[in-house]
Amino acid sequence: MKINEKEAADFLSSSDRIVILSHQSPDGDTMGSAFALYYSLIALGKRVRLECADGFPERFCLFGLPEFDSFEPDSVVAVDIADSRLLGDALQKYASTVDLCIDHHPTNTAYAKRLLLDETAAATCEIIYRVIKQFKMPVTKEIASCLYMGISTDTGCFKFSNTTPKTHEIAAELMRLGADYPRINVRFFETKSRSRIMVERMALESMRFYFHDRCAVLVISREMIQKTGADDSELDGVSAIPRQIEGVHVGVTIREKDDHQYKISMRSGEQVDVSKICGMLGGGGHMRASGCVLKGDFDTVLHQVLTAIADFTKWDGEMA
Amino acid sequence: MKINEKEAADFLSSSDRIVILSHQSPDGDTMGSAFALYYSLIALGKRVRLECADGFPERFCLFGLPEFDSFEPDSVVAVDIADSRLLGDALQKYASTVDLCIDHHPTNTAYAKRLLLDETAAATCEIIYRVIKQFKMPVTKEIASCLYMGISTDTGCFKFSNTTPKTHEIAAELMRLGADYPRINVRFFETKSRSRIMVERMALESMRFYFHDRCAVLVISREMIQKTGADDSELDGVSAIPRQIEGVHVGVTIREKDDHQYKISMRSGEQVDVSKICGMLGGGGHMRASGCVLKGDFDTVLHQVLTAIADFTKWDGEMA
Repeated sequence: MKINEKEAADFLSSSDRIVILSHQSPDGDTMGSAFALYYSLIALGKRVRLECADGFPERFCLFGLPEFDSFEPDSVVAVDIADSRLLGDALQKYASTVDLCIDHHPTNTAYAKRLLLDETAAATCEIIYRVIKQFKMPVTKEIASCLYMGISTDTGCFKFSNTTPKTHEIAAELMRLGADYPRINVRFFETKSRSRIMVERMALESMRFYFHDRCAVLVISREMIQKTGADDSELDGVSAIPRQIEGVHVGVTIREKDDHQYKISMRSGEQVDVSKICGMLGGGGHMRASGCVLKGDFDTVLHQVLTAIADFTKWDGEMA
Repeated sequence: MKINEKEAADFLSSSDRIVILSHQSPDGDTMGSAFALYYSLIALGKRVRLECADGFPERFCLFGLPEFDSFEPDSVVAVDIADSRLLGDALQKYASTVDLCIDHHPTNTAYAKRLLLDETAAATCEIIYRVIKQFKMPVTKEIASCLYMGISTDTGCFKFSNTTPKTHEIAAELMRLGADYPRINVRFFETKSRSRIMVERMALESMRFYFHDRCAVLVISREMIQKTGADDSELDGVSAIPRQIEGVHVGVTIREKDDHQYKISMRSGEQVDVSKICGMLGGGGHMRASGCVLKGDFDTVLHQVLTAIADFTKWDGEMA
């Protein structure tokens, strides 16, 4: 059942023992949504607990990790979770008992009893803010900071094309409410981990250009991952690099997995639909960001990728 | 004489042949301010010409470079220029004849006959927008885009601590007026030149850590600059890297100049006042960003830098 903000706020107000779920491999938006709701509902006198299959990474805990209460919930709420499978294994017990889902993904599978969905929101935190406003209670610095974290991280600090005028207006309101945006911006947009820098360095060393520099290929080997200890989110950041180079229309990152498997991620600008190229290779995705998995030795895999790009784009130029 | 927006707009309205000056080594704010005023005043039927000692780099010309009219001005306007020396040599002829200066730098030397200054504005483009609104004419997509360019580039896309709630509110308005923000964001925040990537790669290869990883040193040799063809603005971007690494309190970039000279730039977080360290080495600057120039062979220079850091911070740890 689709509901609106007022109905979501009423549902939460009528609950007493609330569990709030974040998705696995948590990001700033699912964590910011959960923490903002937590601080709001605690202030309303509720018993509240957050759960996440992968725990609570320190960087998302802006005000520390509260000691959560243990209780049998009367309401289960999922935030920023498009599909119950994204709860992760550890939280599958909740898969069919979610009472309320608040989300902004157009792909939401409507698994929850009540769904508050706004696909035009850049971040779930935008929607959470509107729900919290319905409580007619003061929005504290803590709440404003958590919401700002979700909105800024989901938009690459207002840089990605999902950013709307509304996003900026909400950011302005949250800043006026005391959101600690200097600390959040430094933490998420001006700090790189040592392992991220290391893997970036090694990957840049491996970078190759093809088709008169219209295609850049970056390779991340298992050795690099082992040497640097970089985790998945750090590797995802690196995948954005080849496309960012001036003049590059297709950026490819080839990441070595186990057993001669390679995960290919392909990014493009406006000119090339990489979902079609990845489709030719048994994968898929979006026009500007797609992927596939290929098996074989490295040289064969690279050749397959370049051949597919050449076939689709009709580009000439070196492919050796 | 300090004036307000209304007075600045009245002055411009009463002028007929206007020359608008941008500062040397132009950035997005001085260029966005000039172009936004240009499109507005042209629409009001004025004759307008832009001038800049270093020309008009293509990346700042969002809608191409107009063919400028040649005429004897009745008004000379400087935008985003704190000091008449920043006009550059080629435009020194205007140094004492600026009729109106619109600026946001607290260090403005009040060299112009009329000064519209707002130090709380994140960018001069914020102030220009308020002036243009006084004209009571439609703000076109071109004007909105130029203003958005100035505001986003001066704030690192709303990431730097000069960003205010007002900045976000103005961004929202400009987006509603049709600013081409996806193109501007991609151009300025998601694109790196090939030479920048190359110099980054080489510099990362050279990176060393000292004092239990609290200090990172990046070296840019003359060979790297020659090989990659990176220019000064690209090298400045690279200087920000060492400090961005998690756990690093002092980030140092050592850049080889001619004749055994090395330009040292030092960046820090909140904990270390690098202006004092650079002061010990004959340089200076701000608490979080300072520099100095040292002479000698590379090893001696590096040792001098590390010794000064150790003396000031009392850090222990490897310095070899």
